[in-house]
Amino acid sequence: MMPLPRTVIIGGGFGGLSCAKSLGGAATAVTLIDQRNYHLFQPLLYQAATALVGPSDIAWPIRSLVRRHRNIRTLLGTVIGIDRGERIVRLDDGNSIAFDFLVVATGARHAYFGHDEWEAFAPGLKNLDDATNIRRKILVAFERAEFESDPQKRAALLTFVIVGGGPTGVELAGMIAELTRRTLPGEFRAFDPQSSRVILVESNARILATFAEPLSAFATRSLAQMGVEILTGVAVTHVDAKGIARGDEPIEAATVLWAAGVQASPAAKWLDTLSDRAGRVVVGPDLSVADGIWVIGDTAAVQSNGKPVPGLAPAAKQQGQYVGHLIRRRLSGQTEAPQPFRYRHQGNLATVSRRAAIADFPHLRLKGRLAWWLWGIAHIFFLIGARNRIAVALNWLWAHATGGRGARLITRHDDKDA
Amino acid sequence: MMPLPRTVIIGGGFGGLSCAKSLGGAATAVTLIDQRNYHLFQPLLYQAATALVGPSDIAWPIRSLVRRHRNIRTLLGTVIGIDRGERIVRLDDGNSIAFDFLVVATGARHAYFGHDEWEAFAPGLKNLDDATNIRRKILVAFERAEFESDPQKRAALLTFVIVGGGPTGVELAGMIAELTRRTLPGEFRAFDPQSSRVILVESNARILATFAEPLSAFATRSLAQMGVEILTGVAVTHVDAKGIARGDEPIEAATVLWAAGVQASPAAKWLDTLSDRAGRVVVGPDLSVADGIWVIGDTAAVQSNGKPVPGLAPAAKQQGQYVGHLIRRRLSGQTEAPQPFRYRHQGNLATVSRRAAIADFPHLRLKGRLAWWLWGIAHIFFLIGARNRIAVALNWLWAHATGGRGARLITRHDDKDA
Repeated sequence: MMPLPRTVIIGGGFGGLSCAKSLGGAATAVTLIDQRNYHLFQPLLYQAATALVGPSDIAWPIRSLVRRHRNIRTLLGTVIGIDRGERIVRLDDGNSIAFDFLVVATGARHAYFGHDEWEAFAPGLKNLDDATNIRRKILVAFERAEFESDPQKRAALLTFVIVGGGPTGVELAGMIAELTRRTLPGEFRAFDPQSSRVILVESNARILATFAEPLSAFATRSLAQMGVEILTGVAVTHVDAKGIARGDEPIEAATVLWAAGVQASPAAKWLDTLSDRAGRVVVGPDLSVADGIWVIGDTAAVQSNGKPVPGLAPAAKQQGQYVGHLIRRRLSGQTEAPQPFRYRHQGNLATVSRRAAIADFPHLRLKGRLAWWLWGIAHIFFLIGARNRIAVALNWLWAHATGGRGARLITRHDDKDA
Repeated sequence: MMPLPRTVIIGGGFGGLSCAKSLGGAATAVTLIDQRNYHLFQPLLYQAATALVGPSDIAWPIRSLVRRHRNIRTLLGTVIGIDRGERIVRLDDGNSIAFDFLVVATGARHAYFGHDEWEAFAPGLKNLDDATNIRRKILVAFERAEFESDPQKRAALLTFVIVGGGPTGVELAGMIAELTRRTLPGEFRAFDPQSSRVILVESNARILATFAEPLSAFATRSLAQMGVEILTGVAVTHVDAKGIARGDEPIEAATVLWAAGVQASPAAKWLDTLSDRAGRVVVGPDLSVADGIWVIGDTAAVQSNGKPVPGLAPAAKQQGQYVGHLIRRRLSGQTEAPQPFRYRHQGNLATVSRRAAIADFPHLRLKGRLAWWLWGIAHIFFLIGARNRIAVALNWLWAHATGGRGARLITRHDDKDA
């Protein structure tokens, strides 16, 4: 029996996982490699960072998601390079994996605009460890404030700066504002949590620039009503342990969170190929960079109908399925050139608070409570598995009814585990 | 107005928390100090360590549990000493807290019988970070086994040794056996998880020595049916990265978990007072070691009716309430000697599998399914808050029906966060 062609997929996010699933049962031996053992539902990651849901509510072991496809094996490993000539993927443990077809779906990390030293003071949010770290940072600031006698230092502990006014920044700011206004009041003796400042900094003229202007204006008003201070039009010029500078204006803050930019993973370097300014690999209309090598999701700079495809979960999923389809064609011996990838935009959604959201669809704009319900139903629907749907719905219901947060734990305590 | 007498409680476990709550509204300013921000439901901690429930399902922010008592403040801090003469508690950040009344409820940690170097290879289970670490250790062993080609090394990766046959050791062994026999089969391509060995090592002649002999025998049979190998009568003589030695017999195992002994926290040293062999402070019949200073829970060696009080949650709770009552008496000016502490034993419960448990009550012994239901209902009942009860019940139901585990996440991945 001839050995099956080998497909290697790097990355178990929305793109890599959908590609793997679309190859379930196909005549290829698939290896799905990720440096973490879980697939993450990133759209709700900000809720884990703000103690609303637990990490296990929004993540699933990758191998359990593909268990029924006997032709797919899952490998926990860290890729450090790709040899296009030898057609192997190199891992950091010295092993390498040979491929006939390769799909690179390694996503993106935060970008600090050339100031990597800021990362230590302003963590970003991409995986569960980031979320747990941010959760700890926020909760510890309140704990320290309770026993800080210097008013200026206490004020800095109670100031939360979020850099970046995209959906993640807006959602983080809204969540922290609710934490200070709704969850924590009554629990501290030395200060009123409602006196906390939550500051959202955006260098553009308005927040949520990818949404239509009226929706962005609605989000601005909603956040302001919740006590969030929105500072637009001036970029952050410095970040350190004391806080940030915005232009020339210093803002003292013990907690600075980064939601300002992303940088693609080093796939372009691995593949020794062209990348755009954000480090994304420039791919052909069929998402390939070479024969039998594709790059998808946030790692790729993709055009569709002459427009750049946004870095959203549905786009990554569509690309994964598209490449899965191309590989199946190859396996069945079809050689004619494939149709180029076409992105079907399903709309933009963002939550502002536990009651308000904005929805920007091709033919429909919604804001407020109805948009929130739409947002909630869509996200519950896209969660994998009944258990997680119930768990997340339960946490939302709980927070809605009582203001409480189920996951307010400071784990990995510095003195023990740092 | 005269300042209120100051009560300091060190430790937010079952003992410290119940003491604090019993002082809610009393004419004393209470400071509750813990080095973690959460109260932990330790009886279910082994389920968090084996991915059945999430950490946030079994823990609550201490300050949210006492928020309605305005005379109680909560302090996240690490105590490093007590000055009995000055009547102050010293913290590691250089601050100190003065007290009129002091309650020490700092619990216990694992003890390695003088071999502290074993801890690096055989972690114990006392807090959520321990649980997350153990969960990662177990799950990573399977991940490594999938890509280990040397059969001997793979066998070591698939061998799980639990040292200590008390309730925690039995519960861990049962849970890991279910993981290998029920949750994981079908997810790996290079081996069958059912070929894993789960070995429970106990130096006494039988496991669960605090239970009646027939119940212990039942647990032994149940575990054996689930595939757990039980080795009794010989103590562990060595632990290292390769595994353990049991007497002269080496057992290669990548995962060794420690459930063999506890050592009280250093309270006896802080208080410069007498302790027993396990480091527990020897207290008087009213749990005091000096005027206005009490030691309770696992930190204290307590006698009741001439018998030592066991290190169980109900015992710690009863002691916390008893001392709270004594402090209230003092506050109201009563000076006559109090009644000595009397422990009301409510029975021993332990689970063996998701279907079987054993229950040893003063006038009733139960084993099997009925005991499991009793165990389950009791534990759900004692969880704090509707949200957690529903979340834990949901996870149990899910595991029961599907064999799946909701919290199988490897967080704090070595390469990123070590």
